[in-house]
Amino acid sequence: MGGDNAPQTIVEGVEIARDEFLDVEFVLYGDRAQIDPLIHNTDRISIVQADEQIDMNDEPVRAIRRKKNSSMVMAATAVKNGEADALFSCGNTGALLAAGLLLVGRIKGITRPGLVSTLPVVSSDDQSFNLLDSGANADSKAEQLYQYALLGKYYATSVRGIKEPRIGLLNNGTEPHKGSKLTLEAHDLIAADESINFVGNVESRDLLEGVCDVVIADGFTGNAVLKAIEGTASSVMHLLKNTIMNSGVSGKLGALLLKSSLGEIKGKMDQSQYGGAVLLGVKAPVVKAHGASDAKTVYYTIKQIKSMIDGQMLPNFTEYFSAQQQKEDQAAVVDKK
Amino acid sequence: MGGDNAPQTIVEGVEIARDEFLDVEFVLYGDRAQIDPLIHNTDRISIVQADEQIDMNDEPVRAIRRKKNSSMVMAATAVKNGEADALFSCGNTGALLAAGLLLVGRIKGITRPGLVSTLPVVSSDDQSFNLLDSGANADSKAEQLYQYALLGKYYATSVRGIKEPRIGLLNNGTEPHKGSKLTLEAHDLIAADESINFVGNVESRDLLEGVCDVVIADGFTGNAVLKAIEGTASSVMHLLKNTIMNSGVSGKLGALLLKSSLGEIKGKMDQSQYGGAVLLGVKAPVVKAHGASDAKTVYYTIKQIKSMIDGQMLPNFTEYFSAQQQKEDQAAVVDKK
Repeated sequence: MGGDNAPQTIVEGVEIARDEFLDVEFVLYGDRAQIDPLIHNTDRISIVQADEQIDMNDEPVRAIRRKKNSSMVMAATAVKNGEADALFSCGNTGALLAAGLLLVGRIKGITRPGLVSTLPVVSSDDQSFNLLDSGANADSKAEQLYQYALLGKYYATSVRGIKEPRIGLLNNGTEPHKGSKLTLEAHDLIAADESINFVGNVESRDLLEGVCDVVIADGFTGNAVLKAIEGTASSVMHLLKNTIMNSGVSGKLGALLLKSSLGEIKGKMDQSQYGGAVLLGVKAPVVKAHGASDAKTVYYTIKQIKSMIDGQMLPNFTEYFSAQQQKEDQAAVVDKK
Repeated sequence: MGGDNAPQTIVEGVEIARDEFLDVEFVLYGDRAQIDPLIHNTDRISIVQADEQIDMNDEPVRAIRRKKNSSMVMAATAVKNGEADALFSCGNTGALLAAGLLLVGRIKGITRPGLVSTLPVVSSDDQSFNLLDSGANADSKAEQLYQYALLGKYYATSVRGIKEPRIGLLNNGTEPHKGSKLTLEAHDLIAADESINFVGNVESRDLLEGVCDVVIADGFTGNAVLKAIEGTASSVMHLLKNTIMNSGVSGKLGALLLKSSLGEIKGKMDQSQYGGAVLLGVKAPVVKAHGASDAKTVYYTIKQIKSMIDGQMLPNFTEYFSAQQQKEDQAAVVDKK
């Protein structure tokens, strides 16, 4: 029920995905009266009636606690109870993060789950990079940034099929001695783990050029960088459009001749093909696609979720972090002795 | 002597500025043998021989302490001694910041001077906005962000002639309750000062659309946002160029017809017209222009420095902060009694 064009575009996207992914079943939580007429073919699609909705103005944690019959809480509860494998919404981001944390639940050993977003590498035809944490947390510790490096590694391996993803740490300079207290400490933690293909500090100006596969940031800075990239790309494209519109006959003719090129650029900057933002560190994929998502984005997001599940991302996370946790628990016992 | 094209472009820019600003005198610190032959007319331009230079690989603080005969240290010392009114360099940014802090010196009451950068508002023909701190400090406190709001206000008034500049706080959401510990605290400090025209929290995606005149950020986030904006604009423009180059005959013809429009866009994104980044909170303007600056940028930066001096920015700073300091000192004395 979440997003600007729900439930219409959600149902459309689900039907495309259902026709392509023959081993996936869909459960739609929401208002049956609205959803049912939109479905052309109910094969592998079921509806569970939800009498309430969480809207964009709801305070996230409060909404998750009180609106027990909302589509989001009911869907998250189904994931918690093992009735569904992943949670997907185009609705209130804060509420979805709260549902992920409070209902789906953290993986043991992860202190603060983080949000991973996917952005294009513009100098390449098919490359992209991940930014993690892109905004789940406003304040972070170095240990959490280190966990993001591990989570990001498993994510890039499962979803994007990169064997040894290049992990970079977002910083104010590339030299190892540069940074804030937080990034200096995080740098050392990440660098000390030999299982990570760490390329060191990276600067935000180089991200779109593909300087690494996964860039690690605290959620405040990650969010600011994500929005700066999105805003700048959008502003430059608008500027281009407006300048052409005001450029007289020759300019308009030029634009006509360039139409396919300009469309190509827009396509490359379009993030819908990368699916949604994923909350990593919880017990199942919890995925948020943009409120303005169209059917194509919904389809791509389902494809992305399928990759996480087929790629065994969650079992890999859980195994790694529970082994880590066990080591720490044993160390704590030894310390006490 | 600093920058990619020094001293050639520096001298060219100085000569343009000298011809336009009849009340400005220039002192060039550097290698006389290289500089002297480049000057066409020595009217109001003098050279002071400096036997050393600080280069891009020098460790900033160490270089300022040891290279006493470098052009940068000598120029900063002249400012410190009142022999010059402002310090301008295209060289090593870190070293220039260190020279500002250690030689020119902090204004009493300012704990951490911050760097202010100027960026274009793309939806307007002549608007721009300031970002402060864009990278002088890696770790900041709320009190420092509040001081940046005050410094930014005086800067926008003096240099840009805006009577009541709209000050925004960079945050991860626009609602007043959003933010990190740091921004929540800074929000309250800035909001409590009625002398500031505070527009509240702003998001990085809205900066290029002119959401405020001055945006306040901690230096780590500000630096990340600045570089994300610069990198994205540059990547999108490159993408445009490459797509056109590979678009066949009709695309190339289209580009030819659009040439002036594309030039216009490039011109709008070009930051050289806004001069350099200014270290605010020290006793004189300390200004860094890009290492790749051409003569036009050097000229614009001198124009910018002249605005700061003509606009009485420094006396205004000093008066305000020394009055604040006096109040605090008196309060401390009363407390002790």
